[in-house]
Amino acid sequence: MDIKVSLKNTDIKAEDIAAKKAQANTGLDKLWSGELDFTGWVQAPLNQDKAELDYILNVADIVKTEAELMVVIGIGGSYMSAKAAIEALPKTEDGIEVRFAGINFCSPYHRALMDEMSRKETVLCVVSKSGNTMEIRAAFDILKELMEKKYGSKEAAARRIITITDKESGTLRAETNEADYVNFEIPGDIGGRYSAMTPAGLFPMAVAGIDIRALIEGEKAAAVSPEWDKDATDYAIARQLMMEQGKAIETIEFYDPRLTYLGEWMKQLYGESEGKDGKGLFPATLNFSTDLHSMGQFLQQGSQIFFETVIVVDEYEEEIMIPAGVLAGKTLEDLNRAAVQGVTAAHRQAGIQVIEIHIPKLDAYHYGQLLYFLQTTCAITGMLMGVDPFDQPGVEDYKREMRKALGQL
Amino acid sequence: MDIKVSLKNTDIKAEDIAAKKAQANTGLDKLWSGELDFTGWVQAPLNQDKAELDYILNVADIVKTEAELMVVIGIGGSYMSAKAAIEALPKTEDGIEVRFAGINFCSPYHRALMDEMSRKETVLCVVSKSGNTMEIRAAFDILKELMEKKYGSKEAAARRIITITDKESGTLRAETNEADYVNFEIPGDIGGRYSAMTPAGLFPMAVAGIDIRALIEGEKAAAVSPEWDKDATDYAIARQLMMEQGKAIETIEFYDPRLTYLGEWMKQLYGESEGKDGKGLFPATLNFSTDLHSMGQFLQQGSQIFFETVIVVDEYEEEIMIPAGVLAGKTLEDLNRAAVQGVTAAHRQAGIQVIEIHIPKLDAYHYGQLLYFLQTTCAITGMLMGVDPFDQPGVEDYKREMRKALGQL
Repeated sequence: MDIKVSLKNTDIKAEDIAAKKAQANTGLDKLWSGELDFTGWVQAPLNQDKAELDYILNVADIVKTEAELMVVIGIGGSYMSAKAAIEALPKTEDGIEVRFAGINFCSPYHRALMDEMSRKETVLCVVSKSGNTMEIRAAFDILKELMEKKYGSKEAAARRIITITDKESGTLRAETNEADYVNFEIPGDIGGRYSAMTPAGLFPMAVAGIDIRALIEGEKAAAVSPEWDKDATDYAIARQLMMEQGKAIETIEFYDPRLTYLGEWMKQLYGESEGKDGKGLFPATLNFSTDLHSMGQFLQQGSQIFFETVIVVDEYEEEIMIPAGVLAGKTLEDLNRAAVQGVTAAHRQAGIQVIEIHIPKLDAYHYGQLLYFLQTTCAITGMLMGVDPFDQPGVEDYKREMRKALGQL
Repeated sequence: MDIKVSLKNTDIKAEDIAAKKAQANTGLDKLWSGELDFTGWVQAPLNQDKAELDYILNVADIVKTEAELMVVIGIGGSYMSAKAAIEALPKTEDGIEVRFAGINFCSPYHRALMDEMSRKETVLCVVSKSGNTMEIRAAFDILKELMEKKYGSKEAAARRIITITDKESGTLRAETNEADYVNFEIPGDIGGRYSAMTPAGLFPMAVAGIDIRALIEGEKAAAVSPEWDKDATDYAIARQLMMEQGKAIETIEFYDPRLTYLGEWMKQLYGESEGKDGKGLFPATLNFSTDLHSMGQFLQQGSQIFFETVIVVDEYEEEIMIPAGVLAGKTLEDLNRAAVQGVTAAHRQAGIQVIEIHIPKLDAYHYGQLLYFLQTTCAITGMLMGVDPFDQPGVEDYKREMRKALGQL
């Protein structure tokens, strides 16, 4: 296991962690027992279906050869993991552009996308367990019409539509069967925010040129590592202890702009898993060093209702050297490392607690480890908090009110 | 004044606002008195220097004609306002691409930018009061070398470098004078986060094709409006009352992806103005409807340490209709309006307070009003809280520690 957690810049003592270790390990055992609903992701890396993976890679190869653009219609768990990986990871040259729709109700956004679809050979990929989510429905119905006009007929368009949906139930499954779309299945025992390693995440990543075999290898290495349990439960316990100290916010911080959407993915993972029964740490992401020049003042001297979790990349594939001036001879990454150290020291002096998570390199293999690490940690914190980390009972409320409002418009 | 505030979905009563109105109005008078440091922005819309504006527009015209790309090196207040406006507002067709550097220490980010600069006719624009900020220094020294190689000599590169800096002092002023760069001045009595309407914001916006005259007209309309005072102080008082109720977080929400960076600008404006002396509301931005599918569960049922401020655009320039299916005949914006209503109703039923700020249209004129409104509100809330909304005494701490760390690398 190459993901490392450091609590040295917190007030948490070894005995505080030890006191909750048995409870955290019980949580870990429960995850592995297979008894809990929606824990299919825990053992999935060990049981990867070779035929399914080959099929994903084969279809991705065809799409990469025949199209210049793939538009993925998905939101929440059917969007975030693919978007985050595509922003973060190196991609092979044969990877094509992947854009997203169904993530807002904004005409100018869709107009720009439709202009691009008109100009480029396009494949449409719809990712949804049900197919009823309103954002997905609206975008699919608009963009399907464009595809039918562009390619001349319903049938020609259908050959360029791929769906990723439930095996049996739901509107999108029915449409898939009727139109005979190429399709992949989202396993029924894995919820949206834990679905990065299902076809929902893997297929768009593969089309973009990400090495999804290495990603899965990373997940697998994490899943079988005995060291693993220690760091994952340490971080989970630390988060629970911060809540017990009265901290309301976890600022999730990166020093690399490529990790911006990993932060968005973490917001869903943590917020939706833990924010229930009036509980939960509010997850807020910060992109350093940019955000040091906006939120830096608040962090240093404002209301101390937060603790920080910083995700540090240790090695970079390239370091550009500054050729002249007072910083001559340093690389940008030298400055970045100094920023990580300097910010941590200054915040620590102000009494702020900083948890560090280190990832050796930003490549598919280590990123796979990181995703599995974060999912495990989140699930265990939820169990320590006494909530079900796999349900989302509150998400229907606004949808019901929205349908009511729509009826009155 | 076309920006409207509604407190109808909060627990705040008219008498609560009335009780603090005199204090808020005193704050407003202080802002207008000219006695406070760094309040040059308050009267600036009324005293716009016509010659300076013409000069900005003339230089922008030359850049638009001669270059395909302008790279702006700036961070914090020298970055956010231009970036936010460029993302949010309509742009004329002669506007060119504006990209930003100096916002991170990331080689892959800079490598991609340098590749683009190599291929395109490029102007470099450096925005910094001092020129010593490390991100700016590093990016400028790297990209200046590229410009010198690309255009063959120091002199040829210098003709394609524009600076926006202090009138007299600082490293960048000295370099500007020595190399005779075309330059604009950042007024000494306006701080970074209030500098949107100075050349720091206006020049990059103009190069991108934004109608900066309309933006300034909007600001001016806001500054002279008597209605203005009511809504600006209402919102400022409401924010202070939320703090007194024990709320720790203000979630700043948009239903339009084009406003993402306005949210980032607001994070700096609010966080840096108020986060001091152990005080401040933690500003967290949410992009709906995407973030309803990530943070929606937390908002509905999680820890209620927050209140919401939603910025609603009332009219859209285009509404795409859904051509088929269950939503046929509705536009994307119908769904968006239903989402605003539905989310507000569902959150209100859960006991959450929602402040609404309405902007009639997303154009330069109304956006100018909005910026002035938000700056005024922020300054008044700071005064109600008992902090100086114009200083940032904590931002040097990490820089000092960072220099120490850099020396040890």
